[in-house]
Amino acid sequence: MKTHRCDVDLEVRYAETDQMGVVHHAAYLVWFEVARTRLCAQAGRPYASIERAGHFLVVSGVDVTYREGARYGDVVRVTSWVDWVASRAMQFGYQIRRDARLLADGHTRHVWVDQSTGRHCRMPADLAAPFLAFAEQTELSRRGRER
Amino acid sequence: MKTHRCDVDLEVRYAETDQMGVVHHAAYLVWFEVARTRLCAQAGRPYASIERAGHFLVVSGVDVTYREGARYGDVVRVTSWVDWVASRAMQFGYQIRRDARLLADGHTRHVWVDQSTGRHCRMPADLAAPFLAFAEQTELSRRGRER
Amino acid sequence: MKTHRCDVDLEVRYAETDQMGVVHHAAYLVWFEVARTRLCAQAGRPYASIERAGHFLVVSGVDVTYREGARYGDVVRVTSWVDWVASRAMQFGYQIRRDARLLADGHTRHVWVDQSTGRHCRMPADLAAPFLAFAEQTELSRRGRER
Amino acid sequence: MKTHRCDVDLEVRYAETDQMGVVHHAAYLVWFEVARTRLCAQAGRPYASIERAGHFLVVSGVDVTYREGARYGDVVRVTSWVDWVASRAMQFGYQIRRDARLLADGHTRHVWVDQSTGRHCRMPADLAAPFLAFAEQTELSRRGRER
Repeated sequence: MKTHRCDVDLEVRYAETDQMGVVHHAAYLVWFEVARTRLCAQAGRPYASIERAGHFLVVSGVDVTYREGARYGDVVRVTSWVDWVASRAMQFGYQIRRDARLLADGHTRHVWVDQSTGRHCRMPADLAAPFLAFAEQTELSRRGRER
Repeated sequence: MKTHRCDVDLEVRYAETDQMGVVHHAAYLVWFEVARTRLCAQAGRPYASIERAGHFLVVSGVDVTYREGARYGDVVRVTSWVDWVASRAMQFGYQIRRDARLLADGHTRHVWVDQSTGRHCRMPADLAAPFLAFAEQTELSRRGRER
Repeated sequence: MKTHRCDVDLEVRYAETDQMGVVHHAAYLVWFEVARTRLCAQAGRPYASIERAGHFLVVSGVDVTYREGARYGDVVRVTSWVDWVASRAMQFGYQIRRDARLLADGHTRHVWVDQSTGRHCRMPADLAAPFLAFAEQTELSRRGRER
Repeated sequence: MKTHRCDVDLEVRYAETDQMGVVHHAAYLVWFEVARTRLCAQAGRPYASIERAGHFLVVSGVDVTYREGARYGDVVRVTSWVDWVASRAMQFGYQIRRDARLLADGHTRHVWVDQSTGRHCRMPADLAAPFLAFAEQTELSRRGRER
């Protein structure tokens, strides 16, 4: 976890549960996405404006570890941060808690895509400084080549 | 229900259930959509190709009556047809059954939108003949003005 | 619309959009549900506790009119109220706005089910007073027999 | 990938797309689940019957690598198999293809839960033989202790 992180509190929605009586595991990826949206806004660029400016931040990988189920009626806190940032890729980290209990944690990896060409590209220039700061890096890491 | 109709059999997905132990009511709209896709294909134009050609068939209204819950493990049959077709709008009808039991029925209303302008427009010309035939109409109805 | 109503502000989630670039029409039913949850809490019984006490408030019908699309980046306000309440059924009403624009409105109808028998039943006694007040009724309406 | 595997062909649903014009990354977990359901059926126990008999096969971890987007109009083939099986845990593997193109691959890890106690438990006895055969193991692996 990094020093700069972002907390979003979400009320569990009934539609997010399944017949096991807990939140369906795919919903956690949606929660991660809500938190990621918030981190981009904190970096000075709401993700909606990133797309309008011609880029997509495409998900290239995810991993989640589920420790305990969230339930309808719970308010969960999604904490997210930037794990690392490379010129063409980056990783976010996440923890989901209900009060002090860790319910799940995970990561999402991303690549940048230029909407006009549909091809991988470099991160929008103005995002480099804030994301480097969030990731506690002084320069872009070398992981850019991984998808 | 009209003579020309289309049946799609769907296995209930676990993710479609909620903690009541039955399929969440919003999932039925997704099933209606799967059936509608099939009807468009039967009219000679898969909906994906309708969009690629520059139109959207936008949902302007829905109604659903839920009679009995579908459950994980069920295979449901979604029957759909064209209720009526106007120059700028149309309505589809649906029934969802498990064997002989009617689980739900409903309708979706739609308007055509031109992607280049973002405005309402007339139905693509080549769809008029098949949709009129499906709706058992000899001419376009006057309901085009409703959203 | 009734005097007693409840507003919930929701940030549109990326996962709620579809390739039309607007929120998928099924997501509105999920938003209605979030608002309904809030109204039940205002009536003194969070819906989670209603279920734990042995009842389900099952959706028996919905209708939605879609006027304009919600988009990722929008914050929408879901306003809900109790339209009418009968001994065994009730209806909620909803409007969804982005600032002053009405994006959609609709209704959901419900019946009460006793979890122990799986059969329709009367509303939990302690909810009658607050729901009657919300609906501006002095007594339960006669609509109880509709599903 | 193991010799025993199961293929499920799925038509992409419109609701599964997002405004990037491709299938939302969370939908792949739902597709994995559809495939897993089929593998359980091939092991002689449809998952619905496993739950009715008092067990849950809870997801404890997932990882997915996304290589190329699936699109509305595509039919994707989800191939799944049993990676390994332990006394109290197991892992499934998945690949998603459109024709010869690999779109995504991943894994889900699971633990068994006894519905009556809500606690982790051993795999239902009658599933051991078929799952061992699917996993090409002669005995249960030692990974049972991982969540």
